[in-house]
Parts: sequence; structure tokens; C-alpha cells
Amino acid sequence: MILTVTLNTALDLTYTVPALTPHTAHRVTEVTERPGGKGVNVARVLAALGHEAVVTGFAGGPTGDVLRELLAPLPVRDALVPIAGPTRRTVAVVDAATGDATQFSEPGPVVTPAEWAALVTAYGELLDGARAVALCGSLPRGIHVGAYGELVRRARRAGVPVLLDTSGEPLRRGIAARPDLIKPNADELAALTGSREPMRAARDARRRGAHAVVASLGAEGLLAVTPDGTWAAAPPARVAGNPTGAGDSAVAGLLSALVEGAPWPERLTRAAALSTATVHATAAGEFDPARYAELLTRVTVTEPATAA
Amino acid sequence: MILTVTLNTALDLTYTVPALTPHTAHRVTEVTERPGGKGVNVARVLAALGHEAVVTGFAGGPTGDVLRELLAPLPVRDALVPIAGPTRRTVAVVDAATGDATQFSEPGPVVTPAEWAALVTAYGELLDGARAVALCGSLPRGIHVGAYGELVRRARRAGVPVLLDTSGEPLRRGIAARPDLIKPNADELAALTGSREPMRAARDARRRGAHAVVASLGAEGLLAVTPDGTWAAAPPARVAGNPTGAGDSAVAGLLSALVEGAPWPERLTRAAALSTATVHATAAGEFDPARYAELLTRVTVTEPATAA
Repeated sequence: MILTVTLNTALDLTYTVPALTPHTAHRVTEVTERPGGKGVNVARVLAALGHEAVVTGFAGGPTGDVLRELLAPLPVRDALVPIAGPTRRTVAVVDAATGDATQFSEPGPVVTPAEWAALVTAYGELLDGARAVALCGSLPRGIHVGAYGELVRRARRAGVPVLLDTSGEPLRRGIAARPDLIKPNADELAALTGSREPMRAARDARRRGAHAVVASLGAEGLLAVTPDGTWAAAPPARVAGNPTGAGDSAVAGLLSALVEGAPWPERLTRAAALSTATVHATAAGEFDPARYAELLTRVTVTEPATAA
Repeated sequence: MILTVTLNTALDLTYTVPALTPHTAHRVTEVTERPGGKGVNVARVLAALGHEAVVTGFAGGPTGDVLRELLAPLPVRDALVPIAGPTRRTVAVVDAATGDATQFSEPGPVVTPAEWAALVTAYGELLDGARAVALCGSLPRGIHVGAYGELVRRARRAGVPVLLDTSGEPLRRGIAARPDLIKPNADELAALTGSREPMRAARDARRRGAHAVVASLGAEGLLAVTPDGTWAAAPPARVAGNPTGAGDSAVAGLLSALVEGAPWPERLTRAAALSTATVHATAAGEFDPARYAELLTRVTVTEPATAA
């Protein structure tokens, strides 16, 4: 199985309104509720690809109860650790006229030291049966900024390949623990390294401790800088659509191909195709399977010139 | 006791953001949850004035459970009727820089005929001990548009004075059942009568069936057209602040003075003072007691010229 960790899970609400006008009152015409958080999205895509996927992290309060009820019918295993504080909500307000979304994210619960200890114990047990693990998203309050470093080290001691997908100081501190792979987007990579030149920044991130770096560059595709070589994967054409969850689908593609023992170019093809098929789908974080199958044959992987 | 009916209760969320920028992502810095819906606000103000207040209406789902948990410590009695559908949320996004609010209201649950029948039965029993009743707010889906008419007729048969505070077709249909009092704002009164001239519109509303009309005209104060005479109540000066809940506080002031047997000028003074003290308070729907006490001595009530 593949394990995903989402320390700051969320109950994702999507509100459709005819048009968003600041400082006025809006009647919401449609409400959808989804179990959310990056690792939850990754697990859903992994399950859709036929993998056994397990989600851990925290869930608490009435919102946590709803999150778990919404997870129950999905083909992913719920190994969330209960906490006293309530799981955060996110609200995406979608303008029906333009499709544009305006997002609001609650800060998330405060996690106690005892709750963090319970998560670390559960994580250790889950690693036993895991073929790979993804550590995803922001840290809730109360968790020390070096938390991902601790989870990376435990995965490495257990011999489980570990992918870290976070940002800011948790990424900086997590990288120092030498994860097998990080998947920053262009902004996260620039914040980490100070460089907006992706090749230079990805190499810098490797020097900081990441064994391999796959940068997601939006419509440009992916850039991988690894011990085995350097590759760029590009989708066939720019796509319009909803980019929410595209990065999570790329993570799922990378892990899926990793556990199947596929070489880097195939891992990147899968990640780029899934990511693009997610932008194409109407609902945030879903992907269009037919479009995915078609894109698998149309993503191009090249080895860029690697001047030192 | 005074009974308030809120058929479309809400879990009111307030999100503070540094600044609202459409089509971007926002981190919410502060989240507050309150039990909401107009009749719930009215009952809270009544309780703060020393009255026994009972709230009925519908509550369901996880959001309904949270609503009831938040009501439990308040000095109002929860006589809400359980339903299968989930209580709606409202989200008010407050821009910390300007204080301006952008509001989103979910549509509310679908109420079944059996649930409506249970509400009507509970309402009949509660009327037995009520000295006045307020019927407040919008109708959830599944409830016939003449529902308020039915509740008005039952209150009148029970000899309990009934105030109707709603809008649109439910107001139009409710008025025909001859409520003792309606409290429309300027827009609601114009929508009902087609006239934006408050005196003319209020008289028209009386002809349509309301025994008395108290129109809330924002910073202008209140205009009452009643069988006993016509009065205008004005606060001492324009006030800046958050008008959310000001109309609900006016309803509470009217009911409070009504059950104490106070004459119309005193009812209007209390309603205008509470309404203005609510605009002054920092939290939506609260009122500032010191400001209220001061305003009671400073609201002016006059008898406007009543040319036919």
C-alpha cells in the first residue's frame, strides 16, 4: 500500500454564486462538501489508479466527523488520528459566470503534544506495510516546524521511499532530513532557494538534502533533477481549466510509477498526464480518465542541456 | 415567555481576512461560529433584556448539532424540531482593513411534510405559554409559501400577539392572515407595495392585512403606522458600524415593550435604541448595553403630519 500523511486535513466546501461582488450578500446556489487536504487528494488519485491507499493525519470535532463520513464510501483506508480540536474548513467561492474561484482557508486546529505523539506512533506502524509514503501540506498549529524532518527520518530508517510536498520553513527543515523526493511548484522552489531559474533552483534544492527534485511548473510541465539524470516533461498543449489539485495528481503519478519500479521518464509522463487531466476535469481534484489515457501517449519527455 | 420561530436557522461563520481580493486564495486569520437566523438573534436580545425566550424552528445534520451546542449555554430555551436535512451555514468574510463584510448564505435544507407537521404541532403547544410570538426570516425549501399565513392564524386563534418579519412572497401571503405587526425594512416594504414612499407604503401594507406596520428605515430610524396613531422614532445621530442584526434587535425591542404593556412611543424608543446600539457593537447581532441605556433617553419620537 501507499501511505499519505495530511496533518492539516480539511472539509472542503465549494459555493457556486451567480457572480462574486465584494461587500454584498450572496445566495449560494450550489454547495458541495468534499474530504480535503493534499494527502487526501493524492490518495484518491492513487486509488483511482488501482493502488491500495491509506490516509493518516488528524481529524477532530464536528467537521472532522463529516470528513470521515465523506471518506468512508471512498476506496481509500481511513487511518486518521482523532484530536480534540476541530478540523478546518476551506471555502472555494466559484463565480458561475467566469468559473473563477476565490478561496478561504481556516487556520486549522491546535494539536497537542500527546496528539502528535499518537500520530508518530500510528505512522510508525503504518510504515511497516507501506511501499512509499507522501507527506503533504501545511502544519496545523501546535506542531513543531521540524515535524516533517522527524517523519522523513522515520521513513528512511524503515526503508520506505518518502516524498515531501510542503512549503516554507516546514519544507526547508524537512529537506535537511534527506527525503527521497520533493515536488515544489515554481513559487515554493523560489522561496526555498532564492532562484526563479528552475534548473538552478532544483540543483540547489538537491544540495540542501533532497535526493531528487520534481518541480511542477504549471503549463510548462515538470522538471526532474535526480541522481539518475535530468528530464523535462511537457503536456501537448496549454490547457484551460481548474488547476486545483493538479499538483496532488502529479504526486500520485510519481508515487504510482515509483512503486511499480518504472524509470524516471515513465514516472514523469504519468505525473504530467495526470496533472493535465486534473486541470481538464470540471470538479477540483478529480481527473478525467479518458483524457489521462490519451495524454499518456502525448506527453513529451526530453533531456535538457545540463550546462554546469 | 416570548416565542421566536426561525424556520431557516443557520450556523453563522465569520471569517476575518487581511483584505478580500476576488479570485485569489486567502488565509483566514480568525474564525467565529454563532447560532444564527433572525429569530435566534431576536431571542438572544430578549434574554439580554431579562425576558424568558424560547426558540423553535428546524435544526438538522452536523451543522444543526453544532448550532444546538452553541445555543445550550445561552439564556434562551432550545425548542428546535429535529430534521434530517442539514442546517445551512452562512459565511461572512470581514475585511480587517475596512471592516466591510461579504456574505454567502447556503440555501438551507429541504423540509419534508412530516417535519413541517411536527413543527406545527410543537408550535401549537408552545403558543400555550407564550405572551407574544415572532415569525422570522426566509422559508427553507419544501415548505409551502403560505406557511407563515398558517402560523399567523394559529397564533391569532390562541390569542397570542404575532409579529411577522419576512420578505417577498412569504410576507405577501403572511400579511393576508392579519398579523398584529410586521417590521419590513425599506426594500421589503417597497417590494411588497410597489412604493418607496414609506408612509404611503406602510398604509398600503395595513390595507393588505397587517394591523400595525413598523418600517425600519436604516439611519432614519423607524416609522410606525398603527390603529392607535402614527409615529416616527429617530436615533440622535447617524452611526457608523455593522448593521447586521439591527433589524432583529428592533423586533426584540418591539416585543419586549409589547408584553410589558407599554404604549407605542415607548415601544418605538426601545426598538430604535436597541437597533442603534446593535450597529455600534463590534460583533454582528450583539448590542452595547451602556450605549443602549444612553440611547433610551436620546431617541426622539414625533407624530408626523398625516395628510391623507
